[in-house]
Amino acid sequence: MTTLTLYYTPGTCAQAVRIALEEAGAAYELVRVDFAAGQQRTPEYLAVNPKGRVPALATPQGTLTETPALLAFVAQSFPEARLAPADAHGFARLQEFHSYLASTVHIAHAHRPRASRWADEPEAQAAMQRKVPQNMTECFNLIESHYLPNADQGPWVMGEQYTVADGYLFTIGTWLHSDGVDITQFPKVFAHTQRMLQRPAVQRALA
Amino acid sequence: MTTLTLYYTPGTCAQAVRIALEEAGAAYELVRVDFAAGQQRTPEYLAVNPKGRVPALATPQGTLTETPALLAFVAQSFPEARLAPADAHGFARLQEFHSYLASTVHIAHAHRPRASRWADEPEAQAAMQRKVPQNMTECFNLIESHYLPNADQGPWVMGEQYTVADGYLFTIGTWLHSDGVDITQFPKVFAHTQRMLQRPAVQRALA
Ligand SMILES: N[C@@H](CCC(=O)N[C@@H](CS)C(=O)NCC(=O)O)C(=O)O
Ligand SMILES: N[C@@H](CCC(=O)N[C@@H](CS)C(=O)NCC(=O)O)C(=O)O
Repeated sequence: MTTLTLYYTPGTCAQAVRIALEEAGAAYELVRVDFAAGQQRTPEYLAVNPKGRVPALATPQGTLTETPALLAFVAQSFPEARLAPADAHGFARLQEFHSYLASTVHIAHAHRPRASRWADEPEAQAAMQRKVPQNMTECFNLIESHYLPNADQGPWVMGEQYTVADGYLFTIGTWLHSDGVDITQFPKVFAHTQRMLQRPAVQRALA
Repeated sequence: MTTLTLYYTPGTCAQAVRIALEEAGAAYELVRVDFAAGQQRTPEYLAVNPKGRVPALATPQGTLTETPALLAFVAQSFPEARLAPADAHGFARLQEFHSYLASTVHIAHAHRPRASRWADEPEAQAAMQRKVPQNMTECFNLIESHYLPNADQGPWVMGEQYTVADGYLFTIGTWLHSDGVDITQFPKVFAHTQRMLQRPAVQRALA
């Protein structure tokens, strides 16, 4: 693995990939995509990712997109960092969690800033935005009760082993405040966030 | 791998997992979850999958959910069936495609039958439903131009090699008609569907 370039916008789901690269000790370059300037929809960026979204990761073999794919790719490309379970069932549980975050939790959130994707009428967009706090609360109740380990299993999403899933949960957790949801309602999620903030790799990724 | 049980509803994304199991030559049991009877929300089913969705796959080491996770799990559990690329970059491209289907295309579709997830007001739900044909058309234009291989690369999503991604694309493609989108607009997608219907494993999965 020689040259990796992460197309990145601070605060977005691309942050999960940046955390993974920092945890892996990977050498990578960052290219900032400025959403305020609409850079994700310029011809230059659409040539990188025709979907017009971040993250994208340029690799020597071609550009990859989609947060769950990139997280698994980073973990598999830097096996010595042990960022994913090694056994097939453990890896599948990791992937299950990633897929839930990408296809349900991220989507629940996106109905606030990106409601226009799914309806043209301003009233309909406002109706979607009103429901975001309820949907995000439901998602995080499920994460709290079903996905976060019992205290006797260890502090991370997968238990004793820190994995790429932790940076993904942490990143989406930072959206709760702007979604109108108080993260301290979910004590395990909140404690997880506090633990994440103490990791040097996370501090570097947020810098 | 001894006992696998797929919780399944015909026509849903769970069909992609059933196709993968058939292609793998796996021994598995099917449990039908009857949406018309609201079975996905009974306490019995919520004990299987607290998210109240299909697919779920019970394995000897515990139950897994989320289509992308299950497809990769089936491919990795039956390596001799060669249902996923073996190299890290190829596997990441497979995962990218799965993640796009789960988090963008499936979601674009779900705004028709499941609009009530994202807004309570009937007018807002109707506004979402009106936009589904446009969003599904955009998704399939991207699949047609960006994800489906050029004729010289081979007939499947990953090129020469048939993979679990093919059953997933096929399954979501069967939703286009009810979404008000004509699949023949996308010649490569349409040809892919026709090729899929000729595979004995697909025929068994649809039976
Ligand atoms: N399924 C993709 C979604 C990527 C995505 O929607 N990223 C957002 C930032 S969190 C984005 O680029 N939005 C820009 C836009 O919608 O214009 C993934 O998980 O990576
Ligand atoms: N992200 C999940 C979504 C699963 C999902 O939404 N399945 C639908 C059928 S395609 C379902 O069970 N719907 C039942 C309901 O919403 O009540 C996956 O990809 O497996």
